[in-house]
Amino acid sequence: MQQIHARALTAEAFAPFGEVIAPRAEPTRIINAGRCERHHALGRVTVEGGEAVISIFRSEGVELPYICRLVERHPLGSQAFMPLGAAPWLSVVAEDAGGRPGAVRAFLVPSRVGLNLRAGVWHGVLTPLGGAADFLVVDREGPGANLEEVEIQPVEIVA
Amino acid sequence: MQQIHARALTAEAFAPFGEVIAPRAEPTRIINAGRCERHHALGRVTVEGGEAVISIFRSEGVELPYICRLVERHPLGSQAFMPLGAAPWLSVVAEDAGGRPGAVRAFLVPSRVGLNLRAGVWHGVLTPLGGAADFLVVDREGPGANLEEVEIQPVEIVA
Repeated sequence: MQQIHARALTAEAFAPFGEVIAPRAEPTRIINAGRCERHHALGRVTVEGGEAVISIFRSEGVELPYICRLVERHPLGSQAFMPLGAAPWLSVVAEDAGGRPGAVRAFLVPSRVGLNLRAGVWHGVLTPLGGAADFLVVDREGPGANLEEVEIQPVEIVA
Repeated sequence: MQQIHARALTAEAFAPFGEVIAPRAEPTRIINAGRCERHHALGRVTVEGGEAVISIFRSEGVELPYICRLVERHPLGSQAFMPLGAAPWLSVVAEDAGGRPGAVRAFLVPSRVGLNLRAGVWHGVLTPLGGAADFLVVDREGPGANLEEVEIQPVEIVA
C-alpha cells in the first residue's frame, strides 16, 4: 500500500486546495471602538446556483496511521471546516488528474485552525485527531449534483 | 437609565432576530459511512448583491452589568457569530420601530452556541463574557451601504 506522511500545514502548501482559517499576524482592521480585531475574509464562500448554509458536523475521531480509501468533491461550492474544540485534525486532499483524483496529500491541521476547501477539490471525509469533535461547516445547499465520490487505491497516512 | 435583564437564550425567543447555531437533539442525517452527524443548515447566509466571507473576530470581553449605548445593523446581509472557545457570551439586539431601533433585548448565550442574525436586525457590538474571545463570523462583503449605526438612550443590562 502506498504510504504518505502527513505534513505540517502552511498556507502556501495548502493554497492549491483552499484557504487556511486562522487569525493573521495583524488584523485587517480594528472595529467596535477599539475593542475588536477583524481578521477579514480568511475564506471566501462560493455557492454556484445555490445558497450558503451553516451546519455543525459531529464526527468520530481517527488515529494515525490512517488509511484513506475514498475521496469526494463538491463541484458547485466551497466547503469550510472550523473546529469548535481545541484538538488538532487531519486534512486529506488529492490533486485533480483529468477529472479524477490524483496524488493524495495529508496535512496536520493545528489546534483552532480551520480550512476552506475550494469548489471541486478532492478530499477525504472529516478526520479529527484525538477523539470525536464538532466542526462548524459553511457550504452550499441547492439544486444540482454537488457530490462526487470515488474509491481510490488505499493510501496509508503516517505521522 | 433603563435597566433590562439578560434572559436565557431559546430558539423561540430569538426567532424574531435570527437563528441559534447549536447541534439539534437529533442530527439531520448521518454521513461518512456512519461516522459523522450532520446538523444541517442551522443558519442560512444571505448576501444581497455580494458574497459570503468567513472572518475571525477577536474581541475584548465585557461584564454584567453592561451598558449598551449604540446599536448597528447590516441591511444587506446576515451575520453569524460562532464562539471558538468555551465561554458564554451576551447578545444584545433591538426590535425595529419604523426603521429605527426599538426595544432592546439581551440574551445570555451558553457556551459553544452561536447565533446568526438576520439581515437588518439591530444589534450591539460583540460582547463575550469572561474575557477576550475569538468568534468565527460569516457575513457579507460587497458594494453598497451595509452598516447603519445608531446611538440610543443607554440601557443597562443586568443578570
